[in-house]
Amino acid sequence: MTTKKILNFLDRRDLADGPCLVVDLEIVRKTYRALQRSLPQTRIHYAVKANPAPEILELLVGLGASFDVASVAEVNMVLEAGAAACDISYGNTIKKERDIAQAYRMGVRQFAVDCPAEVEKIARAAPGSQVFCRLLTDGAGAEWPLSRKFGCDPYVAICVMHLARQRGLDPCGLSFHVGSQQTDPAAWQRSLEQAAKVVQTLADEGVLIRCLNLGGGFPARYLSDVPGPGDYGREIRRALRAHFGNALPDTVIEPGRGLVGNAGTIRSEVVLISSKSPGDPLQWVYLDIGKFGGLAETMDEAIRYPLTTRYGNTATVPYILAGPTCDSADVLYEQRPCRLPHNLQIGDDVLIEGTGAYTSTYASVGFNGFGPLAVHVV
Amino acid sequence: MTTKKILNFLDRRDLADGPCLVVDLEIVRKTYRALQRSLPQTRIHYAVKANPAPEILELLVGLGASFDVASVAEVNMVLEAGAAACDISYGNTIKKERDIAQAYRMGVRQFAVDCPAEVEKIARAAPGSQVFCRLLTDGAGAEWPLSRKFGCDPYVAICVMHLARQRGLDPCGLSFHVGSQQTDPAAWQRSLEQAAKVVQTLADEGVLIRCLNLGGGFPARYLSDVPGPGDYGREIRRALRAHFGNALPDTVIEPGRGLVGNAGTIRSEVVLISSKSPGDPLQWVYLDIGKFGGLAETMDEAIRYPLTTRYGNTATVPYILAGPTCDSADVLYEQRPCRLPHNLQIGDDVLIEGTGAYTSTYASVGFNGFGPLAVHVV
Repeated sequence: MTTKKILNFLDRRDLADGPCLVVDLEIVRKTYRALQRSLPQTRIHYAVKANPAPEILELLVGLGASFDVASVAEVNMVLEAGAAACDISYGNTIKKERDIAQAYRMGVRQFAVDCPAEVEKIARAAPGSQVFCRLLTDGAGAEWPLSRKFGCDPYVAICVMHLARQRGLDPCGLSFHVGSQQTDPAAWQRSLEQAAKVVQTLADEGVLIRCLNLGGGFPARYLSDVPGPGDYGREIRRALRAHFGNALPDTVIEPGRGLVGNAGTIRSEVVLISSKSPGDPLQWVYLDIGKFGGLAETMDEAIRYPLTTRYGNTATVPYILAGPTCDSADVLYEQRPCRLPHNLQIGDDVLIEGTGAYTSTYASVGFNGFGPLAVHVV
Repeated sequence: MTTKKILNFLDRRDLADGPCLVVDLEIVRKTYRALQRSLPQTRIHYAVKANPAPEILELLVGLGASFDVASVAEVNMVLEAGAAACDISYGNTIKKERDIAQAYRMGVRQFAVDCPAEVEKIARAAPGSQVFCRLLTDGAGAEWPLSRKFGCDPYVAICVMHLARQRGLDPCGLSFHVGSQQTDPAAWQRSLEQAAKVVQTLADEGVLIRCLNLGGGFPARYLSDVPGPGDYGREIRRALRAHFGNALPDTVIEPGRGLVGNAGTIRSEVVLISSKSPGDPLQWVYLDIGKFGGLAETMDEAIRYPLTTRYGNTATVPYILAGPTCDSADVLYEQRPCRLPHNLQIGDDVLIEGTGAYTSTYASVGFNGFGPLAVHVV
């Protein structure tokens, strides 16, 4: 999965000590094109939080993408990469009123909400803006846990859209999220059925929903195979036709992981290999990157990254894998150990693949004195 | 629990937008003195990873403390604060050989190990140094989960110490850790019993252990009362006498959380309060700090911080508490909701108390565009 370009970069360069993430822009470009082909009528908003590297943002601006941002800092990054403010959607439903005002001053006119209080803030701080109400979904089939943190039930959503109109906002859309690393392309079907009912109720009450934001959830390929963009596109188009017939709304998707996850590889180093006692069936392998250096998504062993070494993938044995900090919670895979070569040595490189998304910005600012993850875009 | 000095600072200062941690040095000083009084014969190594703020390190240098470090960067911080290299113990059992060499060049001569491979590294990179072998403990009674990540069983420890001597190192001590936020002062009793047996076996084989590192584990006071330093000192002294009689070894403790946890308070802001549906029994409160902004220890709701507001603690109701990012895992307390005033408002300050340890350095470098936690030491 690690591209030649990344391997060449790692071979050629005298890199600073410590782990680093290398992202291959060509993969981002190809994946963007594949998503576009799979949903040709749908606008793509890149979820900047997945990886805000300037080179990625600039590439996507060049490809005509729009952007989903979580904060004013992300608005800034996207504008600096050359995007137009009208191509930015402020998708975080949790915003300070002064951040809404700041984004509005910067030209942002699309905001996500999931409750009346947020509508009131937007009415005051970003008058006349477009509002998307996020519906609560169950996240079944997603590998990264989806809590009830975002979204509201259909009743609240209908109230929210009416309130938005009363406050002079444009209640233009609904959004939902089927859960990150969603491995079931049919997951959109359930959410679209629910969304269609809300759209119908609102239409009956005189509020016309023009756009559906279908969220993210498109998976990266980790240890297991996942369906491709074509499969997702086909299922989503089928569900749209089933629930909206010929009255298809505009649609938006917000890929993050699905767009950049497989474009990146982290190079780490084996710091130590040891046993706790002579009778232990498994050895421990300690890398120079762990939960607090960028691999936070190994929480509860949710995301299982493929690992490769110079020894190939034959003659592997199970190991417990852990990070380099003095924190006993900094263990990556223990319940389900990972397979690595039986002859792995201290000092060996381990490539952690599919790490283009949700790594560099998750890294701690300096826990245990270990600095943030270095990022190289090639 | 938030001191007048911290409250005055927060009142007086026009702070930048966003959450901040304020640490009162006076509390650090008092807690250091209390720990000293409780174990007058024991040397205190401050676990720098708990909070490496330069002002804290400088205060502790002035008080005569020694330091437990996890990385070369932490060696640097401690030296810059004015400590002598001989007062530094490199307590991380997972070290790159070049980091051991670097620390040795900087004057460090005490290193922790828990396996033969680490002894070999130290023999090559830090010849003649003192070696402490860490024993595996079960962590029963600790609120922050202690995994099997660190330490080895007695058999391996004995081999490790013999190997250290063969390699020209000084096999001078054993260490163990009873688990962070250890609420049972008797926990040291079990570990000391095990350590005493290893010391005896080694003595019989001609290796004299001169020092025991009793680790950290001393708790901060969060929502529930915890025993004070006096209780811990009494139990530890009793256990030492029980297992070592008059042949008491030198002893070291490594408090981190127990020394600085209660010295700090985070000021955060309520960004949103909402319900998912009209029938929901609980509302959600969203703060401008969460799991990725410094409150990583709310993982699995392990550490429960006290929260205070301008309304006092009367007329509270349970809320689900979450952070500001677009990550659905960024929820602080949901299984066991937290109590906050029924009339809490968007924009209110919430003080998160007992946050002097394991917050500022855990903060992500910029997840969702939210910057690291600001730290002020008063």
